[in-house]
Parts: sequence; structure tokens; C-alpha cells
Amino acid sequence: MKNTILVVGSVALDSVETIHGRTNRALGGSAVHFSLSASQFTPVRVVGVVGEDFPAPFRKFLTRRNICLEGLEVLPGKTFHWKGKYDQDFKNATTIATELNVFEQFKPKLKGTHNKCGVLFLANIDPDLQYDVLNQMGRPRLVACDTMNYWISLKKKSLMKLLGKVDLLFVNEEEARQLTGEYNLIKAAKLVMKMGPKALVVKRGDSGAILFYGSQVLSVPAQPIEKVIDPTGAGDTFAGGFMGYLAAAPAWRNFDVLKRAMSYGTVMSSFSVEDFSVKRVARLSKAEISSRYNKYVDALHIK
Amino acid sequence: MKNTILVVGSVALDSVETIHGRTNRALGGSAVHFSLSASQFTPVRVVGVVGEDFPAPFRKFLTRRNICLEGLEVLPGKTFHWKGKYDQDFKNATTIATELNVFEQFKPKLKGTHNKCGVLFLANIDPDLQYDVLNQMGRPRLVACDTMNYWISLKKKSLMKLLGKVDLLFVNEEEARQLTGEYNLIKAAKLVMKMGPKALVVKRGDSGAILFYGSQVLSVPAQPIEKVIDPTGAGDTFAGGFMGYLAAAPAWRNFDVLKRAMSYGTVMSSFSVEDFSVKRVARLSKAEISSRYNKYVDALHIK
Repeated sequence: MKNTILVVGSVALDSVETIHGRTNRALGGSAVHFSLSASQFTPVRVVGVVGEDFPAPFRKFLTRRNICLEGLEVLPGKTFHWKGKYDQDFKNATTIATELNVFEQFKPKLKGTHNKCGVLFLANIDPDLQYDVLNQMGRPRLVACDTMNYWISLKKKSLMKLLGKVDLLFVNEEEARQLTGEYNLIKAAKLVMKMGPKALVVKRGDSGAILFYGSQVLSVPAQPIEKVIDPTGAGDTFAGGFMGYLAAAPAWRNFDVLKRAMSYGTVMSSFSVEDFSVKRVARLSKAEISSRYNKYVDALHIK
Repeated sequence: MKNTILVVGSVALDSVETIHGRTNRALGGSAVHFSLSASQFTPVRVVGVVGEDFPAPFRKFLTRRNICLEGLEVLPGKTFHWKGKYDQDFKNATTIATELNVFEQFKPKLKGTHNKCGVLFLANIDPDLQYDVLNQMGRPRLVACDTMNYWISLKKKSLMKLLGKVDLLFVNEEEARQLTGEYNLIKAAKLVMKMGPKALVVKRGDSGAILFYGSQVLSVPAQPIEKVIDPTGAGDTFAGGFMGYLAAAPAWRNFDVLKRAMSYGTVMSSFSVEDFSVKRVARLSKAEISSRYNKYVDALHIK
């Protein structure tokens, strides 16, 4: 179970509108986008919660994809539903409705051998719950987490306690600044690494991502995409590719390995925006991943 | 003169305020930032105009840096003066004053062997003047130009005429979109290349830059900088590094050569933001450039 990732996060139904169309209660949620991406590299087990309305075909689809749903609790009521709309620039989503439903009562409980997974990814949920999950684990060899502005403002103390026990943090630029009070990302990263994490990944959407690991820094560009359909879940898909590659690698505390993880994260997220919901990642073959990865890495090799 | 760049653009005095301090009538202007960067790679000759107030030390300083000022006309009156202020994010400058002064009467006239230069860079000025300069040239082997939103709105026709004769265009994201009416950069680039240019460089500030050359695309990240002091001229310094490297290379119609040019552009602009005005680029050694270039290229080499 050394290479198995346990992910804790939201499993949701998303209704999204972009300039290219819309979805109605399509499969979504951070744990879903993460898992579908990571499971291309390594086994993934999900801890999450859905309502009784969660469609059986979604469950079947995930299970067929190397994703264990033993930890997906079903509670009376409805599944978390998010409704949002993107502008032409795909940068900011306007939330039309957030119906937490059963997600409001989410109290993650690990089952069976969950606690033996070698790698833990705490997707963006209440940092008190993230901490609670970490306490239920054995001795994972890699712990990563995501968070958001809401928790940084409202639960800074709980988040700081969590960060003391985390190896790797994923945030966006604004969150890095908000967390540290420092505008410059290099300075902000140094402060984050003093809070606990050994590495920080700053996700920047179509501006790429920056990895900080000790004194080493790598900024990578996003893969330019000719037709962006729906950016929902791109950040979690990035984290999934990144963590999936790392979990499958023999050791992660190595800058060259982390660089490859950044590239796999970038490539996986570049696929995810090419269709609504999880549709593009769902039909993705290993050959397509390798081909885009090799092109991406080749282009960046300046001879 | 095959490798000599002729640059036509503004020579200015800039008064800039950022969170780190301010300058008062420091050396600036697109032709200046471009030349100081390009002259690290190849000889540069400037065609521009200044007033009688243009300080003799600035002239001496440029001349000592492989930059020929034979084409720098002195007109009665004052030098172009720009006064601006940047916010903490350094993204948008607020213009406090634009005093065009003698620049308003700028009518570029090539002298002596100017027209024999192998490479021409038309910095951001009125496209009618850019076209007029091009007509005064012999047969340059590489013609590049820059432009801005103002000319795209007000002189679209003149600009289109110019683009028909240009090999390479530098713009930012907004300008690429405005010029083509297409939001997506890959689609916009295809339209630009139908207008004439064989290659397009989209400058994206701290998000890096994207090169389009035929069907090939390269997105490169900016070099993360821990202390940004003044971003004025970073785009022209990028163009200078890019064009300087290309001019010195045996041939430019080669994607590997263009990739190196992108990296030199990035590296040169990363230096330029580290101090006010041209101060950082002014004190730059070839060894510093090589060292940062090698680190940049190495980091992007994902093994």
C-alpha cells in the first residue's frame, strides 16, 4: 500500500455554464477530479460522502478506473451540488448556488486498511477535518493538502496546526499571499516552508505553476490549449497528476522527481479543461498522456 | 552589417514610483531598454530623437555599450518625459504625465549605412512611421515590430499594411486579442500569422511568454524574482535579448534558435526588473547573463 493514495475531499454534482455550453448535475468534486487524474498512475482510495441521489453509473464509472469507493459514505439526503458560470476568460467562476446537502455533515472516518495507505491527499475541506483524518492515519510517507481563502480567513489556527504535519501544500497565488501576508511568491514560499511543508506548489491557472522545494524553484508554463471548454476541477486534476506520479515513484524527496510531477500535473490539467466535467480525463488513454507529456517536456528542453 | 540591429523607437526620461522608491528623469524609452539588452549580443544602432535637455552622461553611457547614436537626432525643446506609478502587483502602471515634447515631431530619417543593417526592430511608435522606416531600409533579413492598443484602435489599417511586411510581431495578450478579435491565444496567433508575420511572441509579464512559429508553439515561464523593483521597460528588454540573440545567430528561421531567443529574452527581462530604470542591465556582465541563462534552461530541462 506504499504507493496507494488515500484522498479525502468532496464528491459532488456540478452544474456548470461556459461560453461553450452547460452541464446539469455532472460528476464533480475535488476528490473525484483528483482521483481520476491520480489513478492513471497509482491506485487511489476515496473517503467522501454522497446522498442517496448519487447516480449508480457514476459510482460504477469511478470503480472501473482503479478508484476504490469503499470509503464513500452514503447519507440520507442529497449530494453536494455546485452551480456556477464562467466568463469568456475562464478565470473566475460566479457561483450561482452552493447546496452543501450531506457534505455539511461530512465527518471522514477511515475504514479497514485506509490508514495503511502510503500517501495521503487532503483536498480542500475544513482544516479541522483534515487534521482529524491525519490523526486516523498510520505513518504515511507523504502527506499533501490543499486549502482555500475561506479557511485561511476563518480557521487560520487550525490550518497552521495542520501545516505543521504536512509535507506538501497546494495553493493558488492569492492563497499563498493571504496565508503569509507576503506579496512576492518566493518570499511567501519561504514563509510557508517555515510553517511545516517541505514543498509548496503554487497553481496559477493558464500561467502555469511554481514549485518550491527547499531553496530550489521551478516555474513551469501551462500547456496552451486551443479550445478551453470548462476549467472546473483543473486544479484538482493538476494535484492528481502530480501526486499520482509522486506516489508511483520510488522516492519523492528529489528535485528531478518533483519536476516530472509538475509536468504530469500540468499535462493532466491541460486535458481536463478540454471538455465538461470529467469527460476528457475519463476517456484518456495512457498513450495520450505519454504523448502530450513527451511533447511538453521536449518543448521545454532548450538545446 | 548582417548582424547589426537598427532600432527605431523612443528615447525618454522616466519618473517612476514603485513601492520600493522612485526615480526622477531617469534614462528610459523603448529604444533604450531594447538597445541595452540587445547590445549584450550584437551591435545596435539607434534612430530616435531627444531634446536639448538630454543629459550628456546618458549619451556617453549608451555609446560605451556598443550602441551607435549617430541616428539620435537632437531637436530644440525637451526630451519625451513619462511619469508613472506602479501598484504593489507591478501589473498596471498609472500614468501621471506623458509629455511627448520633441517626440511629437519624430520623423525617423535613416543616415549613412543605417539602411544596410541586417536586422530591424521597430519599437512601439505610430505604424505609419514604422512603415516609413521600413521603406528607407535596403533588404533586412529580419524585421520585427512591437505595437500597442492605441495603434490597434486608431490606426488599424496602417498597422495591417505594416504587418504584411514584418517577420516577427511582439504583443501582449490583450493586444493579440484586440488585433484579431479572438480570445484564445492559439487561435489569435494563427490569425496574426495570416496577416504577415511568420512568428509571434506574446509577452505575458510574470506569466512568461509564448512563441508561435508556423504550427509550433512554445510557452516559457518568467524567471521568478524575489525583489521586483521597477518593471518599466521589461517588455523592451525582453525583445532586446530575443532580437540580440537572433541577430547574432547564423539563421533565425529555426525553432531551436527561436527557443533560445525566448530564453535570452526571459533572462534579460528578469534582470531589468531588479532595479530602477536601466540600472541593473547597465551593470550586467556577460558572465551573469550566462549563469542565469544556464540555470533557467537547466531548470526547464525535465529529465
